[in-house]
Order: sequence, then structure tokens, then C-alpha cells
Amino acid sequence: MTPGEFRHWAHKVVDWIADYLERVEGYPVAASVEPGQIRRQLPSKPPELGEPFDAILRDVDAILMPGVTHWQSPNFFAYFPCNNSGPSILGEMISAGLGVQGMLWATSPACTELETHVLDWIVDLLGLPADFKSDSQGGGVIQDSASSATLCAILAARERATAGQSNQVGVRAPLVAYATDQTHSSVEKGVRIAGLGSANLRLVETDGQYRMIADRLGEAIAADLAAGRKPCFVCATVGTTSTTAIDPLAQIGPICRDFGVWLHVDAALAGTAALCPEFRFIHDGLDWADSYCFNPHKWMFTNFDCDCFFVRDRTALIRALSILPEYLKNKATESGEVIDYRDWQIPLGRRFRALKLWFVIRSFGAAGLRKKVREHVALAQELARWIDADPRFERMAPVPLNLVCFRHRDGDAATQRILDKVNGSGKIYLSHTRLDGRLTLRMCVGQTNTQRRHVEAAWRLIGQAADELAANRTAES
Amino acid sequence: MTPGEFRHWAHKVVDWIADYLERVEGYPVAASVEPGQIRRQLPSKPPELGEPFDAILRDVDAILMPGVTHWQSPNFFAYFPCNNSGPSILGEMISAGLGVQGMLWATSPACTELETHVLDWIVDLLGLPADFKSDSQGGGVIQDSASSATLCAILAARERATAGQSNQVGVRAPLVAYATDQTHSSVEKGVRIAGLGSANLRLVETDGQYRMIADRLGEAIAADLAAGRKPCFVCATVGTTSTTAIDPLAQIGPICRDFGVWLHVDAALAGTAALCPEFRFIHDGLDWADSYCFNPHKWMFTNFDCDCFFVRDRTALIRALSILPEYLKNKATESGEVIDYRDWQIPLGRRFRALKLWFVIRSFGAAGLRKKVREHVALAQELARWIDADPRFERMAPVPLNLVCFRHRDGDAATQRILDKVNGSGKIYLSHTRLDGRLTLRMCVGQTNTQRRHVEAAWRLIGQAADELAANRTAES
Repeated sequence: MTPGEFRHWAHKVVDWIADYLERVEGYPVAASVEPGQIRRQLPSKPPELGEPFDAILRDVDAILMPGVTHWQSPNFFAYFPCNNSGPSILGEMISAGLGVQGMLWATSPACTELETHVLDWIVDLLGLPADFKSDSQGGGVIQDSASSATLCAILAARERATAGQSNQVGVRAPLVAYATDQTHSSVEKGVRIAGLGSANLRLVETDGQYRMIADRLGEAIAADLAAGRKPCFVCATVGTTSTTAIDPLAQIGPICRDFGVWLHVDAALAGTAALCPEFRFIHDGLDWADSYCFNPHKWMFTNFDCDCFFVRDRTALIRALSILPEYLKNKATESGEVIDYRDWQIPLGRRFRALKLWFVIRSFGAAGLRKKVREHVALAQELARWIDADPRFERMAPVPLNLVCFRHRDGDAATQRILDKVNGSGKIYLSHTRLDGRLTLRMCVGQTNTQRRHVEAAWRLIGQAADELAANRTAES
Repeated sequence: MTPGEFRHWAHKVVDWIADYLERVEGYPVAASVEPGQIRRQLPSKPPELGEPFDAILRDVDAILMPGVTHWQSPNFFAYFPCNNSGPSILGEMISAGLGVQGMLWATSPACTELETHVLDWIVDLLGLPADFKSDSQGGGVIQDSASSATLCAILAARERATAGQSNQVGVRAPLVAYATDQTHSSVEKGVRIAGLGSANLRLVETDGQYRMIADRLGEAIAADLAAGRKPCFVCATVGTTSTTAIDPLAQIGPICRDFGVWLHVDAALAGTAALCPEFRFIHDGLDWADSYCFNPHKWMFTNFDCDCFFVRDRTALIRALSILPEYLKNKATESGEVIDYRDWQIPLGRRFRALKLWFVIRSFGAAGLRKKVREHVALAQELARWIDADPRFERMAPVPLNLVCFRHRDGDAATQRILDKVNGSGKIYLSHTRLDGRLTLRMCVGQTNTQRRHVEAAWRLIGQAADELAANRTAES
């Protein structure tokens, strides 16, 4: 592909993307293909000769698109959102065009410095502790996901707890980590990866609103200490995956500090809400945290992947992850005046991800971001009121932000049929969880372009599914 | 930004990228800014109100571009390449536009199925063992980097060696890993992350050409076994970072098999050469490997991040990384008929990265990819002959593929001055290593658009720097 051909096709692709985003609302939200349906249409052998790009783009439409689930549809209410936006896509485009690899400051200083700068902005935008800023002992870095950020936090905690020895070498007392049964699965994954072992992850009891009971945490830590184990890491969650429950940081923090245990706060979805002063209560007690992460790729309109990970003291993190072979040595690194983000993450290489975050913040402005968040939260609160007023449905958890959990009062079977019905319609997409053993629908209002009319239509559709359920029962009886 | 504004600015950005790629040859390859120079030009506070996109794009040009090192310049010979290409950028654009999150098959079937399909193509394209195909017990997955792939291999090896127990729980014998002092630093990083500890990484002796001596590996494993430790993981390298040395897989493999140790093969840069039958000797003995990775984002013209990671038996990998919380359960997963790639990697979420790889393979065609690789290898071989014929320089290692290692015969100081001189000129960018304690220049011919004239000009520039060195010495004496 010559430079001229690239220019030609890139303009075509821009129109393809713009058309897609204009039409995405009309697509069935979740793909309804069968396993293997996409692959069956692809040739079994790679082409020997190059193909014209129009043939490739035709196959994107004809073969791939029926198998795409439309995360950018304003009717996407499943899981947590994974949003893009115009400025973010433009950032990804320039990042792809520059093709910079920012493993070291020296391998593209702008990549590192913009990242540091934008993460300092984030501290201001969200009202995070000043200790997370780069002019302190701490700082921030972009990770691919909260899973990776959490793993890095576990590794830093392990480093601090073992004074640089791995847990295998020289440490007799097993390291122990603490979370709840509402904590994201990435914490158990990280605990396993780091070699602590799932058996050394304690699930602390939660209260009636799925929040960690701080007293139980204290008791669990004391019991492990008494048994000769070494408490090492606590993950508190601001906005759990099932219900956006908010663990009481202000109570958990002092316990972690007293016992010298690393406190990581996972606010993957909910952190974005702190753009708005009225929602900053979610971070009450965050001053106690050793590390923190949230995902602009969820609710801050920035393409996946973009997780912002902050540490209060970068020493343990860098000690855990830094290895400096000769072929990476350079004068800037030796000067000590620069950040080399390769030492703050699992991989060595890194893309220029700060661009899209910078574009989003500048293009929306702080006020524009807050407006979106407020709209989403207001819509979710309104939906919660509709549910509360409807005798067919039962709300299953508080709605501190933009996720509403509810079920049909007739139980799991009815709830499952409603889920299958509305998702099968292609008009909306919800996901589910289980709360106290009961099947629960999750409806998260957070897609970039979701407006009142989408939430209203979704609620009508859910109501119709419940009506049909009742009608079928009447007919059957 | 409205959809119409996005369309408008995306067209502008396409022209910006196309202009950049047409002009990139004219930029100073390595940025020459001082630490802090970029940040000082950025406002300390984020904007309260949204800014017009033309202001943002102007700042990209005025503030960021002087701090960008041009990895896409055909005069970039440093490190290993990190290439993009027209079709790959188009793939990144569509991936960003769709904004799909492919953690599960069910969350976008096309994302998973295209990835499986293209990785099967890669097995054919590179002549890899059939056991790496998805219709066997094994299969492939796209990782962000070889570092992450290597970590996953270590975790699968640990899983197999401990029968599912972490190394901390229930395993008394320390797990041991093996590499050489030429192995990439990511192996030590992975060994640390997984909790084996750097002290349990053995660096096996290399021969005069920096290749692992298989007999020494066997002796090291036997000694660890005798001492009550548990050998667990060997990393052999096809194309080491310092010199592209190729460890003798055909000798290492049987030793690993005999001792039941996991053999991972890291071919991050060099793997791409196997597109060409005449270079497949690099993979002699790969049939013994339990896992393998190479990076299309290095030498196969596919934007970072794109590492292809293959395993012979996916069971241990999935067992090491799979956790299935309620909120991710779905009928497709329960059917057992689909792949959920979240279980094959560290993070949970994932982008639609197969698109760019598919675009590259289809747009270049196998023949087009081979042509590029052959040109690069031929140019590097020619450069090696020029160096061999020049009495001022000494070649420091064999050149099996596209990396040439050499030094000035006057020693480290002269070599350093040449490196500083040519890199300071902005006309080319080389990097360095140390071989047997001696400073060595690394010149890798592999950027997508590097042609004969670029290598010739680089060699002239290096020669001029040596001439100036000699002239200065004469003047001083």
C-alpha cells in the first residue's frame, strides 16, 4: 500500500467509522451468531498475493459485522460500558500513525511527559490525594486495565512486605491478601499470578449493602498474624462490579495503616464520578490508600485500553518491576531526571495512550465531562424510581451512581426469561449477576451517547417482556 | 464533538497522518529535547471548558512533535523496529471506531473468531508446529507484548509443575527457571512477578556466539534436582536482543522433555523471518516447545501492540488464568464450544487487535511480507560485508538475519563517540549493547520503509564519524 493509497483508503475508513457511529443505534446490540459462524466464512489459508483494500473492507461488512456486539450503541446497558468518543478515536488514530514505542523516556520523550502531565491533571479533576501527583513520592501511569493495575499493586505490596525478597525466597510466613466476595475477579487472578495462591486470599464479610465490614477485616488480619502468616494486601472497591457498592475506605484505611498492610482501591467504573464534587463522597478515606485505579475506558469516553493507576510511593512499585539491561541504558535514565514507565508496568513496550486521554479532556473540558456523568447518574436514579414504583419488580441494591440492579418478583425463572427476551430482541443489552443467590438484572447507564429516550425505551421493553410473561402464565393456567 | 465534527476532524487527521508518513524521513530520528521540556509547555491545569479540535491539533505539532522519536523513519536502526504500515493503521482505526471489548467470545464473537483464525494462518505462514493450531490441544492468542507472553508461559509452567498449587502453597521445593545472560530482561521480570524470585533464575553459559550451551542447561537442571529444587521453566531465544543469537532448540528440547520442564521459545523479533522458507532454520527444534511467541509489532508491519503467543496444550495456561465470576457467565462459555481469551492473558478486557493483523496479511499477502523480510536481511548482510571490509571496524557477532553488531577497533571511547555523533546528527538512530564487556553498536535493518539508500547513507555517516574521530586524534597529537 503506497502512501497515496493509504491516504485514499484512510479517508474511506473515516467515512466508514463516522457512518457506523451515526447508525450504531439501529444495529441489534448483541451479536446473535452461532459459535464458528464467522470463521466458517473466512478462507482457511492466508492469501499468497496481496488483496485490494476494498475487498478487505467488504469482508468487514459482510463477514465480521454480524458478529460484532455494539458496545458503542446507546442501547448498551450490559456489564460496565467500554466507551469511545470522537476525540478519543482521533487520539488512537494519531497514536497509530506515529507508531511510537514509549518504553523509556528516551525512546519518545513526548509520550512519557504527556502521560505524566495528564495523570497529574486527573488528580486535580477527580480531587484525588496530592500524594498521587508526580511531584511527590508517588505518581500515575496508564495501564491497559484495572486487572493489570491491581496486579502491579499486589506486586508492590509483596515487595514492601518482603523487603525485596520474593515470597518464595527467604520468606517463611505465607503472604495473605484480603478482599470481599464482591471484589472483582482480577484480585484473585493477581493473587494467583503473584504466587500468593488463592488459598491465601481472604474474602471478608460484607454488610447488607455488599460493602466490606471493616471490623471483620481487622479480625481477619489479626487472626492471620496470630497464626504466623503475613498480611500483605487489601483491595477495597469503590463501585463493585455486581452492584457498585462502595467499601468504607475511611474505616478500612486506619486498619491497613495500623497493620502495615498495603491498601489498594479499585474504582474502575466509579472513579469517573469524582469529576463531580457532589459524588466525591465515593472517595471518602482515599487518603489512606497506597494505590488506586480507575478506567477512563469505562465511563470517561476514552477508548480501551486506558486505566489510570496511581501510587502514593513509587519506590516499591519500581523496585518490584525494574530490571535495567545494557541495551536499555541511556543518559536520560542515568540522570535520574526522567520517568521510565517500563518500570511501572508488566510489559516492556508501550503505546502512546496519553494522546487519547488528553484529547478527551481537552475536547470535552472538565465541565463537559461532568455534564455527561451527571446525566447518566440522573437517568439511573430515575430508572431506580420507576422500578421501585412497579409492583412487578424488586430493586436489589442501592444505586449510588449509574448501575441499577433489579429482578422480577416471581423469581429467577421469570427474571431469566425477561433477560433472554430483551437481549434476544436486539433492541437493548443487559447483563446479570447473582445477589444472595438470586438472579439479578444489571442495567448500567453510562454509554457515551445514552440519553433519556434510550432509558425510557429500555424500561418499556422490559415492562413488555414482563407483561408477556404474565400473559403466557395466564394462558397456561 | 458531534458526529459531523468527528467526520470533519477525522479527515483532517488522516491527512495529518499521511503527510507525516510521507515526510517522516526528513525528521531528526531521535528527539533531542531536555527532560521536562515538553511538560513545561503544557498548562498546569486541565481546561474547564471544551476546546476546539484545531487548537489541540496545533499543540500536537507545536509542543509534542519535537519530543517524538520517529520509530517509523526508514532511518531508524535502533533497538528492534516497532513498525506500522498503511493497512495496520487502517485496522487500528476501525478497531477504535468499533470500540469492541472482546473479553469473552459472547461480548463480540467476531473479535474472538477472527483472532483464532488469523493465528491459525500464522502457523501456516511461519511453518510452526501444527500443535499450535486451534483444532489441536493448543492454540494462539494475541498478547500486548513478548513480556506478557513470557509471563503467561511462566505461569502455565508453574501451574503444570505444581499441579495447580501456587508455589507458595503446598510446594516445598523452590521452582527454578533457566535462561542465559543473553535472554531478554522480561524473563527475569516474569520470574519475579510469578514469585519464583530472581535467585531461582539460572543463567546458563553461552558459547562464543552467545547461544545457550545445551549441555550446561542439562547440568544445571540435574544439579537443582539433586539439591531438592524443582526445575520448572526454560526460556530459549530465537534472535536475542543483543545479537539475534539463536539458541539450539533441537538440543535444548530433548533435555526439557526428559526432565519434564516447560520450554518457552521467545522469537520476538526473529520469528517473522520464518515467513521465508530459507530462514526457517531458526526454528529447527521448535517441535519440542511448549510455548512460543513472536511480535508482528516488531518486524511484521503491524502496529504495537501485537504479540502472537502459542501453546501446545492450552490446559495449563487456562487453569493458571481462569476465574469465572457470575457476572461473566454466559451460555456460549457454558457450551464449551467457544474460546474466551480472557483466560489466556493477564488482563480481563481486550481490544479487537486481530483486525490489524488480518489487514496486514491480506494487504501485503504472504509473498509481499516475504519480499520485505528478504530485502531487510539482504541489506543487513551487505552491511556486514562492508563492515568486514573496513579496517576501522570490527564485527562483533554473526548476522543470521537483520541485526549487525560492530564496534570501532579503537575501543569503547571511540565507539561511544561515533554513537553520540551519528545519533546527535538526527540523520539516523542506532542503539548499543555490551558484548564480552565491550561497547557494541547495534544496527537493525527492519523498519517497514528502509531501503538500500537508507542503509548506504547510514554507513557513510558512520564512516564520516570515524574519519572525524581520526582527524581529531591527529590534530590533538
